[in-house]
Amino acid sequence: MSSPFIEIAGGVTAPRKFLAAARHCGVKEGNLDKPDIALIHSSAPAVAAATFTTNKVKAAPVRVSLAHMRSAEISAIVANSGNANACTGLAGIENAKRMAQAAATALGVKRSQVLVGSTGRIGVPLPIEKMEASIKELPKALRSDGSLKAARAIMTSDTFPKEIAVECVIDGETIRLGGIAKGAGMIDPNMATMLCFLSTDAAIGKKDLAKALSVAVEQSFNRITVDGDMSTNDTAILLANGAAQSRPMKASGFPLFQRALNYVTASLARMIVEDGEGVSKQIEVHVKGAATFQDARNAARAVARSTLVKCSWFGGDPNWGRLLDAIGYSGARVREEMVDIYYNGVSAVKNGIAGKTPASKLREVVANERFRVTIDLQLGSAEYTVYTTDLTVKYVELNMGE
Amino acid sequence: MSSPFIEIAGGVTAPRKFLAAARHCGVKEGNLDKPDIALIHSSAPAVAAATFTTNKVKAAPVRVSLAHMRSAEISAIVANSGNANACTGLAGIENAKRMAQAAATALGVKRSQVLVGSTGRIGVPLPIEKMEASIKELPKALRSDGSLKAARAIMTSDTFPKEIAVECVIDGETIRLGGIAKGAGMIDPNMATMLCFLSTDAAIGKKDLAKALSVAVEQSFNRITVDGDMSTNDTAILLANGAAQSRPMKASGFPLFQRALNYVTASLARMIVEDGEGVSKQIEVHVKGAATFQDARNAARAVARSTLVKCSWFGGDPNWGRLLDAIGYSGARVREEMVDIYYNGVSAVKNGIAGKTPASKLREVVANERFRVTIDLQLGSAEYTVYTTDLTVKYVELNMGE
Repeated sequence: MSSPFIEIAGGVTAPRKFLAAARHCGVKEGNLDKPDIALIHSSAPAVAAATFTTNKVKAAPVRVSLAHMRSAEISAIVANSGNANACTGLAGIENAKRMAQAAATALGVKRSQVLVGSTGRIGVPLPIEKMEASIKELPKALRSDGSLKAARAIMTSDTFPKEIAVECVIDGETIRLGGIAKGAGMIDPNMATMLCFLSTDAAIGKKDLAKALSVAVEQSFNRITVDGDMSTNDTAILLANGAAQSRPMKASGFPLFQRALNYVTASLARMIVEDGEGVSKQIEVHVKGAATFQDARNAARAVARSTLVKCSWFGGDPNWGRLLDAIGYSGARVREEMVDIYYNGVSAVKNGIAGKTPASKLREVVANERFRVTIDLQLGSAEYTVYTTDLTVKYVELNMGE
Repeated sequence: MSSPFIEIAGGVTAPRKFLAAARHCGVKEGNLDKPDIALIHSSAPAVAAATFTTNKVKAAPVRVSLAHMRSAEISAIVANSGNANACTGLAGIENAKRMAQAAATALGVKRSQVLVGSTGRIGVPLPIEKMEASIKELPKALRSDGSLKAARAIMTSDTFPKEIAVECVIDGETIRLGGIAKGAGMIDPNMATMLCFLSTDAAIGKKDLAKALSVAVEQSFNRITVDGDMSTNDTAILLANGAAQSRPMKASGFPLFQRALNYVTASLARMIVEDGEGVSKQIEVHVKGAATFQDARNAARAVARSTLVKCSWFGGDPNWGRLLDAIGYSGARVREEMVDIYYNGVSAVKNGIAGKTPASKLREVVANERFRVTIDLQLGSAEYTVYTTDLTVKYVELNMGE
């Protein structure tokens, strides 16, 4: 069976009538080759869906974007790296508005039609004049192949730009979906220090778009963790401009659209985990047999976030005792004598005690850069998966100072 | 005003009619000079109070001790290091019972009058025959100054033995309270991978003793965190044999007894934090001005457990943005624009944004081995304090393998 969608090049500018540009505006000091501000623009009117951090301390760009989401149409997203514009008080709100206004003026739209994203250091004022001067120049540089440059401009400690796009046929018309993202640190379920900007040329209403994004985020960004710290700036935005469709998408097309969107967000989420700060291993923690969805999620997250579990993975140690310990304090219903644990399908724990597999076999699995841990609670049929990383010496070194 | 109690030597054997012994039984391989099994015995009938891990995966010694706590009188505690006897199934339960039985037989008491503690590696069977042979010899070695030896015998990755004792006068009689503890890794609020054995010669009933211990644990062991991982083996036991009092303590004596007990447990808890694995700094996180006690606790714990916050402290970086971020996702009610943060009383954040203190002043504070962070939410009058540590390269190295 062939896949109902294919991966294509072009990232966030793969869908029709989406353009992007980026340049160095000086938020990041030094290297002029390092872009630190990006503009993504739909030349056709677009509707937007967005998901923001649930942290009660929300950065100024999040607050301003939340307000602008009330607009019927969104024209552009302007985003910078190097400075999160978080914990910056009223002056920060003013600066986020000025970023949006600068882009709006240059594009000839209303300020409320521009969404704003920022990522980087917390608590430092933005160099807003320099930024305004740069934003003014961005519309001239907008290109239909500008995705990669924009993806680079939103990187902080990321080591590679993250973009993806897919194409599928819905109602006989070829629809594209694309996106860019940045991650690296402060990554935890319920959104991460991540920015994710998505685009599609599907013709889909605001309400359906919001529903689709919510489902996609729950199955992707909400299921990854690097360090357990939820950021003040997390933002995922999806713009839909309908440029590929002659009429609104029929409800019969939604399932395929959702699958394509899930694929895009899951791919970007995996790239974020892969590029987690100092990460040397990526681990899929799959809990099944839980009594409830909540139990499955709690158990998977506890294991995926345990400092001790992550240290042992870093060292190549299949220390299943630490996994059982984390499951035990996760809040999930658990009967120790029922729990089975597998590393890449190899039995580590059977009925709560050591399985018969020689430790050397388990070590072989944990020596890999990617492996899967399956935890079967044998109490029901609920399941949940979290993508996590190891905790490395390099992570600590990267985060111990400015 | 002089303190109502004084510190004295002698640890868990400072109270009258408490004896302790320890020896090498072979749970830990190699060095015969390294004691790995301890016996604490009250030669007068004692009542017991105990608090155990709330982890749903409970080690065998916890399960057996929980059952034995139904006995009216407790005679002894037998405990080993090097092996946690956790996740060891029915064979583990049998082995914990055999430890208790060996001590009971040698002391001439019932098995149910002996409590059991184990700490060390999870998931490995105890070498029970070797242990039984050693336990049989322990009663002959019991001494009224055996506390330090017992404290050494329960050490795992601890770098120093932990003991303390105090003396106070209640109802005209001199009462003593003492204890030993071990900590180091898997340390988190709601009990840690810690064992704590306490003794008193006060004459106090089982019910009042349980209440006093519960209060003391809440104000000490439940307020420390090293790595956020709650162990399967946490145990705090308090034995009271009444040897110092001619009649039961009057209710008027309880407040002073509680103060002395709080002092003992808080001191041992502080030693556990000080000796946390790979720790280079100890930090007191004090949240005040919270709307509720729960809010204060959530905020303090989120900050005290944040991987990013702890990394920045390790690096001497007063990164208050990460603190605000953690407060924001803690679940506590918070109004960003109200939050004040101080490092040793020096203002870092005023009304949610950077205070006027030069960064160099804040760096001076964070360069210390011990400092205090005060977070004022300015929403109410509830407060909470957690004692935590930094997250170091050494911690990761210590926990990356067996």
